Amino acid sequence: MCLLYQGKIILSAVIIIHAFQYEELVQYVDSHQEEYVEALRDWVAIESDSSDVLKRPDLHRMMEMTAQKLRLMGGSVELVDIGEQELPDGQTLALPKVVTAQFGNDPNKSTVCIYGHVDVQPAKIEDGWATEPYNLTEIDGNLYGRGASDNKAPVLAWIHAVEAYQALSVELPVNVKFIIEGMEETGSNGLDAMILAQRDTFFSDVDYIIISDCGWLSRRPALTYGTRGNCYFFAEVEGPKQDLHSGVYGGTVIEPMTDLIGILDTLISPSGKILIPGIREAVAPLSDEEWKMYQDIEFDIENYKSKIGVSQLMYSNKVDLLAHRWRYPTVSIHGIEGAFSAPGSKTVIPAKVTAKFSIRQVPNMDPAMVKKQVTDYLHSVFAKRKSPNKLKVTMIIGAKPWLADTQHPLYEAGKVAVKRVFDVDPDLIREGGTIPIARTFQDVTEKSIIMLPIGGFDDGLHSQNEKMSRYNYIEGTKLFIAYLHQVSQIKKTQV
Amino acid sequence: MCLLYQGKIILSAVIIIHAFQYEELVQYVDSHQEEYVEALRDWVAIESDSSDVLKRPDLHRMMEMTAQKLRLMGGSVELVDIGEQELPDGQTLALPKVVTAQFGNDPNKSTVCIYGHVDVQPAKIEDGWATEPYNLTEIDGNLYGRGASDNKAPVLAWIHAVEAYQALSVELPVNVKFIIEGMEETGSNGLDAMILAQRDTFFSDVDYIIISDCGWLSRRPALTYGTRGNCYFFAEVEGPKQDLHSGVYGGTVIEPMTDLIGILDTLISPSGKILIPGIREAVAPLSDEEWKMYQDIEFDIENYKSKIGVSQLMYSNKVDLLAHRWRYPTVSIHGIEGAFSAPGSKTVIPAKVTAKFSIRQVPNMDPAMVKKQVTDYLHSVFAKRKSPNKLKVTMIIGAKPWLADTQHPLYEAGKVAVKRVFDVDPDLIREGGTIPIARTFQDVTEKSIIMLPIGGFDDGLHSQNEKMSRYNYIEGTKLFIAYLHQVSQIKKTQV
Repeated sequence: MCLLYQGKIILSAVIIIHAFQYEELVQYVDSHQEEYVEALRDWVAIESDSSDVLKRPDLHRMMEMTAQKLRLMGGSVELVDIGEQELPDGQTLALPKVVTAQFGNDPNKSTVCIYGHVDVQPAKIEDGWATEPYNLTEIDGNLYGRGASDNKAPVLAWIHAVEAYQALSVELPVNVKFIIEGMEETGSNGLDAMILAQRDTFFSDVDYIIISDCGWLSRRPALTYGTRGNCYFFAEVEGPKQDLHSGVYGGTVIEPMTDLIGILDTLISPSGKILIPGIREAVAPLSDEEWKMYQDIEFDIENYKSKIGVSQLMYSNKVDLLAHRWRYPTVSIHGIEGAFSAPGSKTVIPAKVTAKFSIRQVPNMDPAMVKKQVTDYLHSVFAKRKSPNKLKVTMIIGAKPWLADTQHPLYEAGKVAVKRVFDVDPDLIREGGTIPIARTFQDVTEKSIIMLPIGGFDDGLHSQNEKMSRYNYIEGTKLFIAYLHQVSQIKKTQV
Repeated sequence: MCLLYQGKIILSAVIIIHAFQYEELVQYVDSHQEEYVEALRDWVAIESDSSDVLKRPDLHRMMEMTAQKLRLMGGSVELVDIGEQELPDGQTLALPKVVTAQFGNDPNKSTVCIYGHVDVQPAKIEDGWATEPYNLTEIDGNLYGRGASDNKAPVLAWIHAVEAYQALSVELPVNVKFIIEGMEETGSNGLDAMILAQRDTFFSDVDYIIISDCGWLSRRPALTYGTRGNCYFFAEVEGPKQDLHSGVYGGTVIEPMTDLIGILDTLISPSGKILIPGIREAVAPLSDEEWKMYQDIEFDIENYKSKIGVSQLMYSNKVDLLAHRWRYPTVSIHGIEGAFSAPGSKTVIPAKVTAKFSIRQVPNMDPAMVKKQVTDYLHSVFAKRKSPNKLKVTMIIGAKPWLADTQHPLYEAGKVAVKRVFDVDPDLIREGGTIPIARTFQDVTEKSIIMLPIGGFDDGLHSQNEKMSRYNYIEGTKLFIAYLHQVSQIKKTQV
């Protein structure tokens, strides 16, 4: 009893010590922010574009730099070979190695695993960047550069959070593992297999997985508890054996492009209603609780409109808009391969045209079922055209949505950490986009996952002029410091 | 009287001499065919792609080579500066000069003006060519190469026809002029103005204009008496100020691509019926005489199908098929600029997409009216979508159809020349494609025009594996030799 009593005393003391040290850690972060910006500058300077095979050496260098940074901090670091990718021409190319690292292995502490990526989307100044995309440039408190927000600054913020504990000789409250990949922007090639292979080794002692590869919804910090999945389709219509001159042959052949346009036009109505039978029926209904939650979320529709640059959105009220962004499916037609897409004019009847479109997945849609629904539907509308052309429908990506329980202790810990750093309660939000790795972590490792974003709502991921604000970067580092502490407060039995 | 009598005698003698010399000319052509093929090889080797600004130096070189060839034959040659073209980015680029040449200026003879072009459509081996497109390759009697049939071999055949007369010191039966341009494949930029400017100079003594920029319908030689025109449209739908991530924004924005697909789908029915009000009503009705003529034309539907590589055409009987190829309008959708058109997948909502489509023009359609009909119609169907996006419809080409009188002496001369060389009567055919310059020649110079093709029915113009058969090239040269003679037999008063 006495021991227990003393135990409680000691526990309280530890909490007090942590609270005190939190202030020291915060001061440390504030006083080192120039170094953090320089570290980000060094990382952004590497053109680690995973979609460009010519940039693969840069990507390898990026993974090595990441590993080296973690090694210098005394982490137990590995560069895991995940094999090769096959290129469309049949050649193979080494995939960037995955960096894993471990700081601490105290069996009495919880173990968190932080996932991030250091590859980026393509960027060229000619695309419309105001600054050189690979030269981090600070303007009015924003740090502009490709990959600044997606996902280099968040990865660095996590590393700096651990480093701050080390620098002040404050014991890490949890064991911290890292898994940093270099193929996220092109579909995390090789990562699923690696996670599966290391399920009973690297992941065996992991309690929680933390992902910071997303952003806030407004200026208010957020915790993200869901993402949409994605079923990506190719619909190919093939007719003549080669492209034809539209003057010479027009009027005599049944043109594949006309057929393709005809079937694409049956996917979604002008008001956004998906016309493929069965899709809408599968969607989990919006609960009153959810409706109320959406009502309370800080979201400025006018701001959103002006950011996108449109005069009118698909829905004019906040709840409908957020719901259709996060928890309803939608169809986007991305483009058509094989038709004439260059500037100028060409009088061609394209012989084979392939539409690319995708349907965002939400609970309780099932990609396998969606594949069947879409394929059957398109074939049925195509059949009505009585065209001699051939239709082939292929689903090339079938990524499921991911949804977490916002009452989970990981989220409760997030709420406390946000309150401590920002002195506000976070919004609980979802992502319209897909982070397939969340679903893989959940399905393979069966660990609990939280998405803890520090990116701003207007960071322009994948767009021109991507940025991370200095504020989000530095305060985000503090949030991660606070969160590590807060996770250590979760009783293992709670989970 | 005596003089007249003698005159007749002399005339008969000339005809006899010509007939005799024709055989010599034919022998000359046969014995020089390897040189002709080499000349074509040299011309095809020049990548005179008028649509590619980077190839402009090659195009200038092509015009210079053409001029030089005509100069070496003793022609009176000019390279006519026709100014500059404006590029979409506002820059200007010198247009390829137009080559004019003259052989003979005897006022007692008729003067023919031969029109041709030496620019070509784009071609890359990756497009699916079996041979290098700019390296003329002979396989089974076919000469494969970009521009071989369209229009380099026919231009060379005309030059070689004149050269043969010269080589044998046979007086040219008519004065021969050439007008060779380098922008035909992109709309003959600058040529209309040049023709207008030289109407009372270069064209003042021209009696007949001959165009050989087309092909036969079957293995039977043909004379072409009509072409369709073309109204080429851009329909641009503009929404957000930049491309958006389809996960992050999908479901909240009204996507320009969905709008564009929606309006494109209203242009033409699956059975080929144009849905734009007023278009079909303007078309000249098919006369009984025309119907009968179409019935008699040699045309093998099965062959046509297998050449195109389709199992079914828009119409299954010859008259309907030919009529819809030549004398009814049609809509072809060529492609969409601004959407994702590369291989692979990209989760983008394109911000601005521009469809390219064209409507073939026939008598009695009026391009100005068609422009209004299409623009009004698309705006009306777009309005029904209630989209906040902006639609802009532009007609960038408005080329009228052209139609000649098949009873004209130029056509009678053609029938005789074809009979002499090929020992068959030619089919009288029309072209589905557009040769806008025919219409310009007609409207500006008011001269009579004939289209005298030597290209094969399966030459694959604008496609992969374009070719000219050695047979058509060499026999075509003979046809031109015979035709020059035959034109000299037309009494000026007849016309």
